[in-house]
Amino acid sequence: MVPPPAASRPGGRSSRVLAAIHTSVGELVGEGVDKITFPVVAERAGVTPTTLYRRWPDVNALLEEVAVAALTREGESAPDTGSLDEDLTQWALAIVHDIGRPERARFLRAMVSSRVEIVASCAVTDRRGEQATEVVRRAVERGEAAPTVPQILDHVIAPLYHHVVFALPVDEAYARQLVRDVLAMVR
Amino acid sequence: MVPPPAASRPGGRSSRVLAAIHTSVGELVGEGVDKITFPVVAERAGVTPTTLYRRWPDVNALLEEVAVAALTREGESAPDTGSLDEDLTQWALAIVHDIGRPERARFLRAMVSSRVEIVASCAVTDRRGEQATEVVRRAVERGEAAPTVPQILDHVIAPLYHHVVFALPVDEAYARQLVRDVLAMVR
Repeated sequence: MVPPPAASRPGGRSSRVLAAIHTSVGELVGEGVDKITFPVVAERAGVTPTTLYRRWPDVNALLEEVAVAALTREGESAPDTGSLDEDLTQWALAIVHDIGRPERARFLRAMVSSRVEIVASCAVTDRRGEQATEVVRRAVERGEAAPTVPQILDHVIAPLYHHVVFALPVDEAYARQLVRDVLAMVR
Repeated sequence: MVPPPAASRPGGRSSRVLAAIHTSVGELVGEGVDKITFPVVAERAGVTPTTLYRRWPDVNALLEEVAVAALTREGESAPDTGSLDEDLTQWALAIVHDIGRPERARFLRAMVSSRVEIVASCAVTDRRGEQATEVVRRAVERGEAAPTVPQILDHVIAPLYHHVVFALPVDEAYARQLVRDVLAMVR
């Protein structure tokens, strides 16, 4: 591969370049571009393909990083209301608000459609697992009966993502019902 | 559109033609063909595009029909073992066996990646809902406490499909845990 001329190279892995790359991927996904490749992203972002090849092993890794960044705000913590029921409800409602947006649903679908091999873990789910762990830890410290973290992922998070990915309707009433159901497991 | 010459037209909507179309879609999805269009399917199946335009409103409708046919065997009934726990477990294990195959996972991902608009219902989920309804009806007739059909769809089916679509591992132990969880909601 011929290296690009020095003049056209952006400032390494600066946050400005990263933001341009993320924005470009988001635009391409939003426009329904079928084949998102490093050269396509590079042209849109005004960087050289080499910038992308240096940072990500393949375009799926880039897509997944962008999806995680788009779907889970940096430093986002789970709610801390003093009650497990209310923590889970507020958390589920925030997720519905986030992933219910059309552009975020497109991100998720673009992400899964690029998957071929079984993955040991999924960055999106891992982040949700960290948040669920916080919520459960605080509930147990207060002496509340709490479902396990896998139960929360399986019975609140998975149905919400399933509905969004399959383009089935998701609303606040649905999120509240899922929380009631998972709490019924430990009552 | 110019109609194709009569000589090249296949025998209407015969099951042979339908099988060729379904097989072709399956092959194209399995090969990871990015853009499945009516002309592409038609060429592979040895039929004219008109045959496809006549039968399906668009290529997504064809993809969904093939996915449903591939994922739920014709006339497949839910197990009837005399116990709700065993019915749900056997049913969940059969689904794991079906959708855990790589080619079926590819079908599901191809199906969701083509979705743009919110759909009122999903043919795959609808079929599972009919099966869950049978299982719940029989349990109630026997006097067993049973979860609702939406609870079974949300807490057994959705997590299984979520895992397959996101390429997370799915196995028998996972299916059994989901059934235990949904039954814990009514105990």
